[in-house]
Amino acid sequence: MLKKTFQEVKEKTPLVHCITNYVTVNDCANSLLACGGSPIMADDIGEVEEIISICNSLCINIGTLNERSILSMLAAGKRANELSYPVVLDPVGAGASTLRTATAFKLIKQVKFSVIRGNISEIKTVAQGAGTTKGVDADASDAVTGENLEDTIAFAKKLSEKTQSVIAITGAIDIVADSHKAYVISNGNALMSKVSGTGCMLSAIIAAFCGANPTAILDATAAAVCFMGLCGELAFDRLALMGGGTSTYRTLLIDFMSQVSPDILEGGAKIETR
Amino acid sequence: MLKKTFQEVKEKTPLVHCITNYVTVNDCANSLLACGGSPIMADDIGEVEEIISICNSLCINIGTLNERSILSMLAAGKRANELSYPVVLDPVGAGASTLRTATAFKLIKQVKFSVIRGNISEIKTVAQGAGTTKGVDADASDAVTGENLEDTIAFAKKLSEKTQSVIAITGAIDIVADSHKAYVISNGNALMSKVSGTGCMLSAIIAAFCGANPTAILDATAAAVCFMGLCGELAFDRLALMGGGTSTYRTLLIDFMSQVSPDILEGGAKIETR
Amino acid sequence: MLKKTFQEVKEKTPLVHCITNYVTVNDCANSLLACGGSPIMADDIGEVEEIISICNSLCINIGTLNERSILSMLAAGKRANELSYPVVLDPVGAGASTLRTATAFKLIKQVKFSVIRGNISEIKTVAQGAGTTKGVDADASDAVTGENLEDTIAFAKKLSEKTQSVIAITGAIDIVADSHKAYVISNGNALMSKVSGTGCMLSAIIAAFCGANPTAILDATAAAVCFMGLCGELAFDRLALMGGGTSTYRTLLIDFMSQVSPDILEGGAKIETR
Repeated sequence: MLKKTFQEVKEKTPLVHCITNYVTVNDCANSLLACGGSPIMADDIGEVEEIISICNSLCINIGTLNERSILSMLAAGKRANELSYPVVLDPVGAGASTLRTATAFKLIKQVKFSVIRGNISEIKTVAQGAGTTKGVDADASDAVTGENLEDTIAFAKKLSEKTQSVIAITGAIDIVADSHKAYVISNGNALMSKVSGTGCMLSAIIAAFCGANPTAILDATAAAVCFMGLCGELAFDRLALMGGGTSTYRTLLIDFMSQVSPDILEGGAKIETR
Repeated sequence: MLKKTFQEVKEKTPLVHCITNYVTVNDCANSLLACGGSPIMADDIGEVEEIISICNSLCINIGTLNERSILSMLAAGKRANELSYPVVLDPVGAGASTLRTATAFKLIKQVKFSVIRGNISEIKTVAQGAGTTKGVDADASDAVTGENLEDTIAFAKKLSEKTQSVIAITGAIDIVADSHKAYVISNGNALMSKVSGTGCMLSAIIAAFCGANPTAILDATAAAVCFMGLCGELAFDRLALMGGGTSTYRTLLIDFMSQVSPDILEGGAKIETR
Repeated sequence: MLKKTFQEVKEKTPLVHCITNYVTVNDCANSLLACGGSPIMADDIGEVEEIISICNSLCINIGTLNERSILSMLAAGKRANELSYPVVLDPVGAGASTLRTATAFKLIKQVKFSVIRGNISEIKTVAQGAGTTKGVDADASDAVTGENLEDTIAFAKKLSEKTQSVIAITGAIDIVADSHKAYVISNGNALMSKVSGTGCMLSAIIAAFCGANPTAILDATAAAVCFMGLCGELAFDRLALMGGGTSTYRTLLIDFMSQVSPDILEGGAKIETR
């Protein structure tokens, strides 16, 4: 499954329209190129509906949302829905401000998202309407662990049923679920949390995988999560050999996005079905 | 010619005012510093006319244009014209949306550009008023090849005559032309297309070279194109030795911008006159 | 002092709200993560007062200011003052345009800044209401040297008295002063000026150090300045060993931010009291 899904990305070069934050946008663009997609960033209300129409998928990231870009997110999302193109939501910092929480809700109400990806605090906010998000990182008290794994899977499935979106909760343990089926993925490395934007990059990559596999959103999302985590592991192994800090790690992370093949992904994924 | 042109950059440290997209803006800033220029990014209508007046040249890049920045581009461009400072246009994604195409036209109508640099699809859009731009990358069907090289040179010369701008069409083969003379440049490496913003960086570098050589725009543009391509080649050779993916390649690319000297440029350029 | 101050950062993981420019924002985010803080970037007027309230400190950087973000800077700054959270001002390019100079004044008038950090030209502008800033870099004629060091220290102390802010003037020689006491710091490397945003990164790091040490602003600022300079030195030494240009240097600089420990900082700081 993983190999075939990733091969589709390599073969189709999905064009991903990103309305995303200005903090990590360059890493998102380079991640998309590295994995085999192609990025286009456009956020003016005067062009977003037209831009999404020439793309394969849309990634909406509310990391540095503003009054102007929120309108563009809504317009692009609705147009993507009309065209039946996959749309990914990254509710960065939902729970950290009323504006972010309200915007996430408004987006989910007006746009049908194929995938909602966030850390556990953000996803809880999306589900409950209130959260304890500490800035843009997950609260330690929210962390998915062996003890609460079953509960979290049940939560993700229920939220998927409610939102009709694949739910991707990422952290030390990743859960990707629709209402019927969940994947638990244990690829990744803790150092990824010391690089700004690994979540944003993953959301963009999910959009690429979904853009290339529009009829298999759950599997495409799971494959993208495995891919990102595996790149994080391989980058960490390489860093251990060559030495360096978090910036070298970031470089290696994107390097591996351009070097991991469908076969390597298939062989390195740590994924199980629940 | 190349050596002298580049030496002027090193000696004058041209200050380049960039109104550019937020995706690749950091790489543009670091590229300018690396090659010997100095960047200043400013896009508020309340300061752009004043900022350009203390600079040596202006680079306008429509990559993430919006209603607000378009007005600033026009104001800064007109002021630069009044001051006779070189102005470079990078019509990123012209052809991909009506807004981008119309903005490129409006800019060209109201501002006299010293140089217009884009991929072949963007430049065709600028010339014809319609294009087949796939996002921000050139369409494969548009590619400049050995077969259509003569035609493309003629097209570039004609467009230069019409716009009174030096036309730089970059891709596997680069063409830099005014109405009388064209350079064909074959420096570069295919991996450059896997790094976001190599086109944007080149446009910024062209603005630096023109800012330091304001009376020799054609030669300055050609030198900048050779410089960028040569850095791409040297980075690829280094990458082959040390290993790594597209992010290491990006680092090496900017590294070489800070390491290639006027002499190395003169020796490594693959340029011919047509 | 330095060791303890930096340990507080590592232990408290201060959350730093940045309203900053889109050129160097990613490096600011990664610098904050590397040194032990946590970044959140938010600039919409609809959320900045709420965002700062969940943070430990605020960093205001006017690098790509606009009409919209200026209002957010004022609102966030005032709220931070109400909450007694440290606020850092980086008056990027003050002196280069009327808008920047006027905005710096307006901010200083309406917000009580814990720290104002800039190059000598920017700080002179802040003090005198007019400057000779060449873009975003300091004018050579303004440089702090052995000859004018005493005068510059006196100037910094006086400005601190006037503004009630710690004044950090950074360049080849750094001065960190309040009205009573000044530190002279000689860490750093000239190559730092060839990387875009080292000043911005430092301002963000100062905000992290102050956020973790809110009752010791002068010492926290001095520690951050030593930290940044030491990372610049260590990065330069490493670069000399491994080879590379300015982009590798940038990577190494941020690498060392994640690798320098409180003990290494204590041992490597070149700081004296005046």
